[in-house]
Amino acid sequence: MNLEEFSFIESIRQPSYKQPSLIKGIGDDAAVIRNSSQDLVTAVDTFAEGIHFLPSTMTPFDIGYKALAANISDLAAMGATPAFYLVSIAISKNWTTADVQEIFKGMRAIGNSFNMDLIGGDTISSESLVLSVTVMGYVNKDKARYRNSAKPGDVVFATGTLGDSQAGLHLLFNPEELCADRSYFVKRHQQPSPRVLFAEKLSVLQRVTLNDISDGIASEANEIAEASQVDIHLNYEQLPVHSGMKAFNVELKDKWILSGGEDFELLGTVSPDAWAYVKDSAAATGTEIKEIGSVSQCKDIKPSVRLLKNNNEMILQKSGYNHFK
Amino acid sequence: MNLEEFSFIESIRQPSYKQPSLIKGIGDDAAVIRNSSQDLVTAVDTFAEGIHFLPSTMTPFDIGYKALAANISDLAAMGATPAFYLVSIAISKNWTTADVQEIFKGMRAIGNSFNMDLIGGDTISSESLVLSVTVMGYVNKDKARYRNSAKPGDVVFATGTLGDSQAGLHLLFNPEELCADRSYFVKRHQQPSPRVLFAEKLSVLQRVTLNDISDGIASEANEIAEASQVDIHLNYEQLPVHSGMKAFNVELKDKWILSGGEDFELLGTVSPDAWAYVKDSAAATGTEIKEIGSVSQCKDIKPSVRLLKNNNEMILQKSGYNHFK
Repeated sequence: MNLEEFSFIESIRQPSYKQPSLIKGIGDDAAVIRNSSQDLVTAVDTFAEGIHFLPSTMTPFDIGYKALAANISDLAAMGATPAFYLVSIAISKNWTTADVQEIFKGMRAIGNSFNMDLIGGDTISSESLVLSVTVMGYVNKDKARYRNSAKPGDVVFATGTLGDSQAGLHLLFNPEELCADRSYFVKRHQQPSPRVLFAEKLSVLQRVTLNDISDGIASEANEIAEASQVDIHLNYEQLPVHSGMKAFNVELKDKWILSGGEDFELLGTVSPDAWAYVKDSAAATGTEIKEIGSVSQCKDIKPSVRLLKNNNEMILQKSGYNHFK
Repeated sequence: MNLEEFSFIESIRQPSYKQPSLIKGIGDDAAVIRNSSQDLVTAVDTFAEGIHFLPSTMTPFDIGYKALAANISDLAAMGATPAFYLVSIAISKNWTTADVQEIFKGMRAIGNSFNMDLIGGDTISSESLVLSVTVMGYVNKDKARYRNSAKPGDVVFATGTLGDSQAGLHLLFNPEELCADRSYFVKRHQQPSPRVLFAEKLSVLQRVTLNDISDGIASEANEIAEASQVDIHLNYEQLPVHSGMKAFNVELKDKWILSGGEDFELLGTVSPDAWAYVKDSAAATGTEIKEIGSVSQCKDIKPSVRLLKNNNEMILQKSGYNHFK
């Protein structure tokens, strides 16, 4: 792509904005947002060619879609409503202008579905594609959902099904492998669905702990356990798994379910009193949800996650999901 | 650098935060900022190895310092007070952990001088270093300074001196070249000083147009002319130039002064009534300032920038500054 920043920024500039709090969008040195009675939630996430995607696993549209979806998932995990995004894109010569327009089209597709406005951007040339997205959203005062609020006695739950994204990636790498649910798993890898509506619905609750499952449930459960200083008990047999997963061998399946990244589902804990309301909220927003375990006080000095499988309890380590590397 | 994101993020996490509006910093899915009576201003800017810097022109400390300085300059150009930054860094193998710590140290050095908090970050491995910074700041309601507010009759002014950064880069590329002010120019290239205090001081004014000089005055003056639909007249002899600039040949000097990038000074316009206050504000904040021209109605259909040099008027085109490429 022959980069002329000005005309490119003009080409991705929205003709109008959806968020009433936006005073100034793209076109000056910075964007301006009017204060709101709500708290502002913000996060940044970066995606790179060769690390998070290959041209063979994702179309440019998918790259944009998924990069913003991953960021929106962080907002959902805070209980926040998405509002804005800023994009920094470093592009190498082997990507065409049309490719880059498609990346922005992918972001726009999921951004529009959550009424988000693109309010800032920067494009530079580089040796490989690096896409960095900053998102902002709103949450009612003192209703941001942290990892450190889990309490002994809580129900542990997860939305959706686990490991789907890595099953999809596996199928993309093995085009000859037969799988009745191929298109389902591939779509889960390329265009994940952040659980915004469900998390918003929980806003009436005084307390609910949320973490998005971006690096696998083993990692996320450990983050909650550490931050809240509790033990988390997960029942392997209760973990939500898509019926199509039985097509894969047990070893792969287990790895994907426990440590597969990029599902962008939510892992949460809530008091047993509020569990019925959480289930109703899931039903009302078309979100699958399952009780998968419970929270207890720490047995040892350090918090841990314990997985019960075939009546054996094992410590579930924080096995980081490392993308392609 | 062998990347283990979690421990790295922990290592750059601030032990405490300075901004009272921050509710939650690094350590959850996102940061949370309490609403304020002021407007929030936000921008993103990206810096890449080979495009904005070379290991031979900038130390890792300088890279961090300058990346954040450039973003702070965008806030200054909006009249905003810096508050937060989020960093996305893509790192290749030839950078060590110590290098990356130095990059963050450079950001911390200038960030601390403006009481900024680092509230979000993401680190990934990549084929070359790409550093993307998102900044946020505050400005009083309806006091954000836009490019579209220049009016016929306005005084045009610039802070500091122009072309210094490119003179510094030239000296870095030509270590044998004698120059009495070498260290001055090199420092201007490596550690620019965004004009935050001066711009804040102007907050009492009802109207002042500001644009930061990141791509050269020719480009920035054209942006104001276009956005405000006015003509801008600049007097070549009045353009602020450092005394050491006379060491360079006229052709280079002219190019740097008019189209040299990365000075991060401010170009502005203000009504003649307010000019004395602007000068006082500059003096009070130790900022050099010069009147360099005036604003008039458009002579032609399209707005233009006219440069008066040796009693000849020429149209000053938007000669984009293209970094190394």
